[in-house]
Amino acid sequence: MANPATLTDLETPALLIDLDRLERNLDRVAEYAREHGLRLRPHTKTHKTPEIGRMQLDRGAVGLTVAKTTEAEVMLASGTPDLLVAYPVLGQKKLERLAEVARHTRVTVAFDSFEVADGLAEIAAAKGLRFGALVEANLGMNRVGLTPGSELMRLAAHVAASPQLELEGVNFYPGNVWPPDEDAESKFEQVRQGVARLREDFERAGLPLGIVSGGSSPTLFRSHEIEGLNEIRPGTYVFNDGDLVEAGHCTWDDCAASVLTTVISTPREGFGMLDGGSKTFSSDRIPGQDPPLFGRIVEVPEARIYKQNEEHGHVDFREAGERPRIGDRLRVIPNHVCVCVNLHEKMYGIRGDRVEHVWDVRGRGKLQ
Amino acid sequence: MANPATLTDLETPALLIDLDRLERNLDRVAEYAREHGLRLRPHTKTHKTPEIGRMQLDRGAVGLTVAKTTEAEVMLASGTPDLLVAYPVLGQKKLERLAEVARHTRVTVAFDSFEVADGLAEIAAAKGLRFGALVEANLGMNRVGLTPGSELMRLAAHVAASPQLELEGVNFYPGNVWPPDEDAESKFEQVRQGVARLREDFERAGLPLGIVSGGSSPTLFRSHEIEGLNEIRPGTYVFNDGDLVEAGHCTWDDCAASVLTTVISTPREGFGMLDGGSKTFSSDRIPGQDPPLFGRIVEVPEARIYKQNEEHGHVDFREAGERPRIGDRLRVIPNHVCVCVNLHEKMYGIRGDRVEHVWDVRGRGKLQ
Repeated sequence: MANPATLTDLETPALLIDLDRLERNLDRVAEYAREHGLRLRPHTKTHKTPEIGRMQLDRGAVGLTVAKTTEAEVMLASGTPDLLVAYPVLGQKKLERLAEVARHTRVTVAFDSFEVADGLAEIAAAKGLRFGALVEANLGMNRVGLTPGSELMRLAAHVAASPQLELEGVNFYPGNVWPPDEDAESKFEQVRQGVARLREDFERAGLPLGIVSGGSSPTLFRSHEIEGLNEIRPGTYVFNDGDLVEAGHCTWDDCAASVLTTVISTPREGFGMLDGGSKTFSSDRIPGQDPPLFGRIVEVPEARIYKQNEEHGHVDFREAGERPRIGDRLRVIPNHVCVCVNLHEKMYGIRGDRVEHVWDVRGRGKLQ
Repeated sequence: MANPATLTDLETPALLIDLDRLERNLDRVAEYAREHGLRLRPHTKTHKTPEIGRMQLDRGAVGLTVAKTTEAEVMLASGTPDLLVAYPVLGQKKLERLAEVARHTRVTVAFDSFEVADGLAEIAAAKGLRFGALVEANLGMNRVGLTPGSELMRLAAHVAASPQLELEGVNFYPGNVWPPDEDAESKFEQVRQGVARLREDFERAGLPLGIVSGGSSPTLFRSHEIEGLNEIRPGTYVFNDGDLVEAGHCTWDDCAASVLTTVISTPREGFGMLDGGSKTFSSDRIPGQDPPLFGRIVEVPEARIYKQNEEHGHVDFREAGERPRIGDRLRVIPNHVCVCVNLHEKMYGIRGDRVEHVWDVRGRGKLQ
């Protein structure tokens, strides 16, 4: 397809990226990291697009983060000098693929078990490679990661003793410090204390702790309050979304991604149907929002997307003072942009009404 | 990639289709339709794969249904003699694409507005084509569709008067007769009365009513109770899922689709993390299930997937009497298979442990 010149050339639904906002979001976080001396290794799960990875590197990111081996393969096209796979890699075929990626760039893996450490060391020995390693700690998220203590330190010592692995430090994800409810402050304090404990334990064990990698978009701008943290891996900040607005991280005007939709039916007074639903926006809800809304319409923020099916967005326009007409085009900011982007084949980078870039979302559906 | 020979050759997460179950599900509905003299025009939104569309046609389906123009393009590869786009098609580029599809197979569109009727008629005149048309009625779903009455009949007369459109009949979707709560019976009765009203109105107006197309998977086997209904368009029945088990349509043993996952971390006693989350299963919840579960583990049905992130499934194994080990492979039946399939690049058709087919999900992400 030839590049569409303007928005009116696009068929809907179409995922739009406001380039001015994207660049502003990228700059904002790059400056924050620079100001506080933090390594920035952004998570590319949000955009899944090497071109945007390149924009992050050009603004000072030291490398890029991915969740899956297949995402690592895709992200090589960004030209990154460093890839962190922030996910335990298991299985012979995946390890072989990851070893191939490591021929092209430095690869570090974050994990929490001897099983994963040994699998990595084995394939590295077979292929004549080394992997960087971050031991994953659980500082309250209760997902992956070992609680600071003896088991975590045994794993760290095991990694440090492996000729095929280079112990770079520790990794954690403070995604539990969100939503910003009454417990958030004590959770944040738990993270601070966890990092302090890790630093003590590593020092006592005489193990190197070069990197302490944490941070998530909702708590991003508080990263410097965690003493000893020296790397952040935010993802969602590139586009922002309803979740992050509700979390107080940004405003609606900072949301760079929206889905251009069309009103395809106005069967009842005050209601309209959009040509997008759970296969376009995802079904993710904003935590605590009850009843849930499935996105925010930029042009008519008072309208409510109160329900969706796979390909239908049900909109109540009654409070909006406007009546939808068949053929109207409306932009929807998704609740959770990471899962929304993963549903789209292409992203259209726009300035005003002009389409500057058509990017393939090359990492979409890369699950393995 | 060469076809993997067995399940152990697959990387995870991988979408598995149990071929014996798929064939049984296909046979069951084909036989039901034959027994009751119903045209079967299955909705392909669930599988999005021409090979399975072909299997439906080979069992007597008169045609296939799609939601979007790009899905219609994909489904041409099934060799179908007939495609119903059960969605209002709007926009010049889409209409041009649909006209191109109509050069290869008969195309019918379901819609509820003069705007869509006129757009179709205009492109058909320009390209020297005709489209079939179904007028969409709202029998309680409150999505698209006009309530039976004068406006619907005006639209039907308008279509009948167009040389480029052939009025085939009416279309509706009784998706509101679900979940099977205390209101379900009165909703079903509303559908029956709606169809009766439509038949009277068409007869009084002297308009042809060849096709009365309705039916959805949850109410599928009651379609013959709706007098005058002569076509069904079920989708989910090919695979079934947690939603349909809860709705009483089938049992867990009828669920043909599952996602093969790996336990990638066991950080706390009694808990394990799967290598799939909302980007693998979707975030769709089973209506009425509170707290929600995000799929059912075939091997350990007592285990609870109580939470998910994009790439993590959080499983509580404490009630299951089994302890997960890192590297264990477990199959998960999704809550809503249609949105789950749309997240995967490939489906693996299996019998026992043997992989018989590797199908590209060619319709995934076809949103336009």
